[in-house]
Amino acid sequence: MGRDHGDGLVAVAGRVGVVTSVVLNLAVLGFYLRGRFFGAGAGAAEKEAGKKVKKAAAVAPSSGKPPVSAESTINLDHGDPTMFEAFWRGPMGERATVVIPGWQTMSYFSDVSNLCWFLEPGFEHEVRRLHRLVGNAAAEGYHVLVGTGSMQLFQAALYALAPPADAAPISIVSPTPFYSSYPAVTDFLKSGLYRWAGDANTFEGDEYIELVCSPSNPDGGIREAVLKSKSGKAIHDLAYYWPQYTPITHMLAHDIMLFTVSKCTGHAGTRIGWALVKDREVAQKMNKYLELNTIGVSKDSQLRAAKILEAVADGYERQPAGASGDASLLFHYAQRQMMQRWRALRAAVTASGIFSLPDEVPGFCTFAKDTVTANPAFAWLRCDKEGVDDLEGFLREHKIITRSGTRFGADPKVVRVSMVDTDEAFGIFVDRLAAMK
Amino acid sequence: MGRDHGDGLVAVAGRVGVVTSVVLNLAVLGFYLRGRFFGAGAGAAEKEAGKKVKKAAAVAPSSGKPPVSAESTINLDHGDPTMFEAFWRGPMGERATVVIPGWQTMSYFSDVSNLCWFLEPGFEHEVRRLHRLVGNAAAEGYHVLVGTGSMQLFQAALYALAPPADAAPISIVSPTPFYSSYPAVTDFLKSGLYRWAGDANTFEGDEYIELVCSPSNPDGGIREAVLKSKSGKAIHDLAYYWPQYTPITHMLAHDIMLFTVSKCTGHAGTRIGWALVKDREVAQKMNKYLELNTIGVSKDSQLRAAKILEAVADGYERQPAGASGDASLLFHYAQRQMMQRWRALRAAVTASGIFSLPDEVPGFCTFAKDTVTANPAFAWLRCDKEGVDDLEGFLREHKIITRSGTRFGADPKVVRVSMVDTDEAFGIFVDRLAAMK
Repeated sequence: MGRDHGDGLVAVAGRVGVVTSVVLNLAVLGFYLRGRFFGAGAGAAEKEAGKKVKKAAAVAPSSGKPPVSAESTINLDHGDPTMFEAFWRGPMGERATVVIPGWQTMSYFSDVSNLCWFLEPGFEHEVRRLHRLVGNAAAEGYHVLVGTGSMQLFQAALYALAPPADAAPISIVSPTPFYSSYPAVTDFLKSGLYRWAGDANTFEGDEYIELVCSPSNPDGGIREAVLKSKSGKAIHDLAYYWPQYTPITHMLAHDIMLFTVSKCTGHAGTRIGWALVKDREVAQKMNKYLELNTIGVSKDSQLRAAKILEAVADGYERQPAGASGDASLLFHYAQRQMMQRWRALRAAVTASGIFSLPDEVPGFCTFAKDTVTANPAFAWLRCDKEGVDDLEGFLREHKIITRSGTRFGADPKVVRVSMVDTDEAFGIFVDRLAAMK
Repeated sequence: MGRDHGDGLVAVAGRVGVVTSVVLNLAVLGFYLRGRFFGAGAGAAEKEAGKKVKKAAAVAPSSGKPPVSAESTINLDHGDPTMFEAFWRGPMGERATVVIPGWQTMSYFSDVSNLCWFLEPGFEHEVRRLHRLVGNAAAEGYHVLVGTGSMQLFQAALYALAPPADAAPISIVSPTPFYSSYPAVTDFLKSGLYRWAGDANTFEGDEYIELVCSPSNPDGGIREAVLKSKSGKAIHDLAYYWPQYTPITHMLAHDIMLFTVSKCTGHAGTRIGWALVKDREVAQKMNKYLELNTIGVSKDSQLRAAKILEAVADGYERQPAGASGDASLLFHYAQRQMMQRWRALRAAVTASGIFSLPDEVPGFCTFAKDTVTANPAFAWLRCDKEGVDDLEGFLREHKIITRSGTRFGADPKVVRVSMVDTDEAFGIFVDRLAAMK
């Protein structure tokens, strides 16, 4: 996955705290923005807006988290990709607008002739088109499945690859440092089909499912399966295998490959992931999980994700009116942003003197047609200063919330820090970091 | 739940079959409709539609199932509520249109101060407003949780109510005939937290979770918990407790009450359900399930559901321009449709002479302020004709697909038939039924 959740989110929400006035201000802001953007197209209800400010504010879409200031606690525990919002407020934004009339897509079904009968054909079309454009994964000859985020598809893959219900639970492993949600999500229902077995590097046995997250959440490294048994299986979590995070060096063609719009375009709230699955029977069984778990996946979000992916590909295939530079090129825009952030972070680490980061990893990107440096979505930040044995706690004293290395099977002198939050939060983070001695 | 899925959907998709030309026709139709509705508001991409008919057809939203004809196999196995589409194509349709700009609701978060941090405030507002309007369930003092359909919330409730992971799995029971998905969904992951234990009427013991589906899927009856142990727990699945299906006789106030827009307004593809939960700790644990399972719930579908529920309530609180009669009153419209369908079904059963149905159940509806008859979303159809031991198989010979009573813990002389499919499918069904002797 590489998406974040779990203890972190709710615990932190409680810790950070939100005063009522901030919430109200956001509601008013939301209403203002809504008025600007909805004025022309949204029907009679919107035109009555003036008469019902109070009510409209109450039903305005949420703005996520409250804004931050220099005094705020900065929450970089989870990888909430709000960094990308600026791109979508630019000239590409209008092309990604989705309009859904009240009568549309009411049925459970999207295409009864498809193995994944709740998959919107338009979304599948744009997924395949995007992989052709970027060249990061083979989609030809693969089944496409849609999930409520790729985390649901991860669980679907466990269900599909596990042995029959009368066998012993299969071991689920991943090399340390592994994504912190893998153990929690594998074990929370105490399934008799599979169970978390920890670090793949130390696992002994031939029957297992290895989770390969590449680029790795948390440390950004490029990974391949470490276990090589013929009877072992692998799930490739490729949430971050996009040009803004890492050079695209290979067109991958693994048996099960998971992706998510959350990390590709920044639309985490849309909760849409997809899987490319080679084997038809595995795809059918994964689909069965999605039927039993949620009877399919939100069509509205599929329609929106299709529109967003279409806009991304259109941005590369034709220059939209009003767009110049990389304002229409999502991956180029995002790569530049990530590169600037990594430069700022490395400068802050140098200024401080008590931290270290993984080395820079350059590579030739077949998409950018250039040698570029990886800019991971998370910083795997280490502190070897004497007396700092719990880096998460140390940073929390500076009102910076991160996720301890212990959650990833690593040591407490390291933390994972989101690099994809808002400009404001990131700016305050690097300023505070540079000042720590 | 009362929603349908599972073996039924995919198996039937295969059986019914779809010829390519039908799919292509639907794509063209979809494009035509899209052009009509999207012309004004959807940005530059749509305006190029004329140049790219072929591609636009490929990305047009799906239309669900193919249309039926007098020769078709009629699939009434699952409760796909496409009957409601006609209402939303009427004057209320425009008020339910949702417009989502590309930059909106990108964050995982909706409101960090809420226990359910991914719940859109506007959706919560409309849920509470709708319960006040209809008077079917107490929402004051309850926590509102949102799920990817109420099936996900059902699983969240099992997780929340189950004893700690080191205890034996708790027994999940429901009185026969129980909703056919309860056993499958309870057991598919072979959880060590809970396990299906069958008919609540014959269950012995004090530790259990009873699933109370009222009105009942499959037979439409009003149910209360049959087990009364103080240490037992109950989940009330109220998917069908809306005025179109049954008289609203009480403002219910159970510990956990599940609802879904799918059966309330007909938007099954939106995959949005909600739970009203009395106890804060139970709500927190249910929310934890939703975090671990899917890291929250589609915001796009929450925004759309909020808009739809707002339109429903607005229809009652003010008469929209262009709407007359019950065209703006969803529950009145749908109640009339359901009543007409039940009359047609009862007439067909009388004409045939080999079938029987549950008796009509009248009651005073506090919402309609009148004595009305229940019009369940499913017909629980029995055939006592000699030689017909497998009613599902018998109807299949007449190209009518239903769900056997055996799936609900009942006998094979009875089937469940969806009453909420399209007018065309329903009309062909009753015509065929009337002709069977």
